[in-house]
Amino acid sequence: MTTSIESTDARQAETAGDELRDQVRDAARAARDAAAELALLPRGAKDALLHAMADALVSRAPEILAANELDVARAEDNGTAAGLIDRLRLSTDRVEGIADGLRTVAGLPDPIGEVVRGNVLANGLQLQQVRVPLGVVGIVYEGRPNVTVDAAGLTLKSGNAVLLRGSASAEQSNTALVAVLREVLVEHELPATAVQLLPSHDRASVRHLITARGLVDVVIPRGGAGLISTVVEQSTVPTIETGVGNCHVYVDAHADADTALRILLNSKARRPSVCNAAETLLVHRDVAAEFVPRAVAELRAAGVTVHGDDEVVRLGGSGVVAAEEHDWDTEYGSLDIAAAVVESLPAAAEHIRAHGSGHTEAIVTSDVRAARQFTARVDSAAVMVNASTAFTDGAEFGMGAEIGISTQKLHARGPMGLPELTSTKWLVFGDGHVRPAG
Amino acid sequence: MTTSIESTDARQAETAGDELRDQVRDAARAARDAAAELALLPRGAKDALLHAMADALVSRAPEILAANELDVARAEDNGTAAGLIDRLRLSTDRVEGIADGLRTVAGLPDPIGEVVRGNVLANGLQLQQVRVPLGVVGIVYEGRPNVTVDAAGLTLKSGNAVLLRGSASAEQSNTALVAVLREVLVEHELPATAVQLLPSHDRASVRHLITARGLVDVVIPRGGAGLISTVVEQSTVPTIETGVGNCHVYVDAHADADTALRILLNSKARRPSVCNAAETLLVHRDVAAEFVPRAVAELRAAGVTVHGDDEVVRLGGSGVVAAEEHDWDTEYGSLDIAAAVVESLPAAAEHIRAHGSGHTEAIVTSDVRAARQFTARVDSAAVMVNASTAFTDGAEFGMGAEIGISTQKLHARGPMGLPELTSTKWLVFGDGHVRPAG
Repeated sequence: MTTSIESTDARQAETAGDELRDQVRDAARAARDAAAELALLPRGAKDALLHAMADALVSRAPEILAANELDVARAEDNGTAAGLIDRLRLSTDRVEGIADGLRTVAGLPDPIGEVVRGNVLANGLQLQQVRVPLGVVGIVYEGRPNVTVDAAGLTLKSGNAVLLRGSASAEQSNTALVAVLREVLVEHELPATAVQLLPSHDRASVRHLITARGLVDVVIPRGGAGLISTVVEQSTVPTIETGVGNCHVYVDAHADADTALRILLNSKARRPSVCNAAETLLVHRDVAAEFVPRAVAELRAAGVTVHGDDEVVRLGGSGVVAAEEHDWDTEYGSLDIAAAVVESLPAAAEHIRAHGSGHTEAIVTSDVRAARQFTARVDSAAVMVNASTAFTDGAEFGMGAEIGISTQKLHARGPMGLPELTSTKWLVFGDGHVRPAG
Repeated sequence: MTTSIESTDARQAETAGDELRDQVRDAARAARDAAAELALLPRGAKDALLHAMADALVSRAPEILAANELDVARAEDNGTAAGLIDRLRLSTDRVEGIADGLRTVAGLPDPIGEVVRGNVLANGLQLQQVRVPLGVVGIVYEGRPNVTVDAAGLTLKSGNAVLLRGSASAEQSNTALVAVLREVLVEHELPATAVQLLPSHDRASVRHLITARGLVDVVIPRGGAGLISTVVEQSTVPTIETGVGNCHVYVDAHADADTALRILLNSKARRPSVCNAAETLLVHRDVAAEFVPRAVAELRAAGVTVHGDDEVVRLGGSGVVAAEEHDWDTEYGSLDIAAAVVESLPAAAEHIRAHGSGHTEAIVTSDVRAARQFTARVDSAAVMVNASTAFTDGAEFGMGAEIGISTQKLHARGPMGLPELTSTKWLVFGDGHVRPAG
């Protein structure tokens, strides 16, 4: 009997798994059809759509907030940490902020149709490389419901259909937000399937999304390192790795100490939980004796725990915790920083190459040769000279908004705005041209 | 006893597997170190290197040809088809052609350091997005030994280290070619590990290469559909899908028949085995009665078998084979073509969307609106208006050379030249800038 019940359970589970897979693949197919329509929309139609969505979110804030209250109540019942509940919670102000985000995206230039390159060949063929949408974009994300609308706005403006796979903890909020967006799509005689929310109650929906090869053009994971590595490693769909930041601040031999301290403190302590926060301080030996004690004192005053190598422990005194090997590879996301003394700028670059995640590194120096050397040797998405690592951000870079910060080298690197949500195609115009034999 | 022997065999096989994996990963680590040096090379040094490699290949042609003779002899012993042996065989002329290819690449602009975008932000931060090498590029390819040198030239010029995984059938030739290239690297005081040939006797080396995540930045498969899908599906390293081409020629209602026939014949029969060859003909109903009989006659005269839908069978007569459903999805690579009559231009675009591989599609039309509509609706790497599909090619597009033709949407689409072998990074210059709270 036991065996029979188990096998029935297993069959039911398998059937449920198949159903979920079919559901995700059907959603992807519908998104593909929608994408073909979206690709043809001129800018005016897309901007009008985003403005209408913004207005609808504001006017229907009460029902969105009511749905959000269900998520918040459940999170409270589950004993979720206050910080996470704060990220989950919506308010009238926050809904208005989300709507303003859509209006900002509406105001950004349309990347679609931009001629990236073009020329006339020797044989008279006219060549144009133009931007086109990617097609179907999958976004896998955690927590905050504002991502639902931000991601929909950016993907629609760039002519893409979007499959949203949010967190189960925000299911009611996301469902309410997407319902509003879809009603506006229909009012504008566009397919509601341009924006779809995938089931979030089962982790398997992520797997079905990232293996829907041929139906989904790219999947972008936004969230913790675990989510990102799962998506990137198990995906058969192309992915863009985002947001893991083990960022470094290197204080050069020729650094103004006050400038270095200001940049260090801002890089570490402005918002320690975000991916562009500094996690490691590297100090050139020539200035270590002067700089390290001041840095340790100011970091401690800001509530930061310093995990130092032997030299930093020696110079920084009892306020420094001895670093272990894993500290150099750790993205703390908290008020902690690893700190080491290095022999030279190339040694700093080598440390970064060995331990960094390729997100953002900063040098503080007054020596122009050192600045040139650091920017050449350090291969990260962003390299700062005399500026805080905190500037690596789509809005700060003038992109208006971002879908994430890519730390991979393929397709997009650094903050991803609208152009990074596009592909290109070649248009070739001839007069009956044929290619000679050979 | 049997069990014991089997488990000993299994252990030995496992040990051998581990050794091969370690060998591939060690090669990738060495390539990473080499890549850090290559990234800093100015154009002059890279061009001098490529010219020296070209000269060395020519002067050492006798030993390369001797090695090649071993591969050819083995292929003949194995009863390999004459066409494949021809692709494998080198000659003094072919070695000189390979060397000339390197000189061509040396003459191309250096993509590295190019400022792609740049501006000054409101806060005075100066922003530059510059091209940098990808790092370590893996190439998995079949057959022809010239790919070994072509790929090395393109990757070195773009500042990358390369891991070459060629065909076992060309092992002696590839080993000899790479030995020459590596000696020139050493003469130029560069790491020989910038160009490495991976073992080709075991298919597992491909698997180890495509799962060396964190060590290899991109893998580009060049070869048949089977190789490409294996690499793309099993890889945890980012990949670029290349070279599968189910290309279409659409003859519009307003097409000049002579122009259409010339483009059709060139697209199909110029070189039927290459990926830009046409595999399907679509004819608008309004011109089908006139065009189909002529097209069938000319195609047959060129030795092409036509697989037609009911309308094409009716109009084309006994010379047409009835198409089956799979014909619309087939990349023949031979003197075969599928042919269908469509009701409209949107129907042609829909057929292409349903069955195409996103490589190259052509419209023949004299109607400017039809041309605009086709280029907007058809989402392929290349869309030709009144030109043969055979033009989708790096050299034809003026790129000087290509590493392959991408049929994916991420990173690169269409022929990939030097810029497509690069990534970018953001350089941000400040004067002690810190980001305000908020």
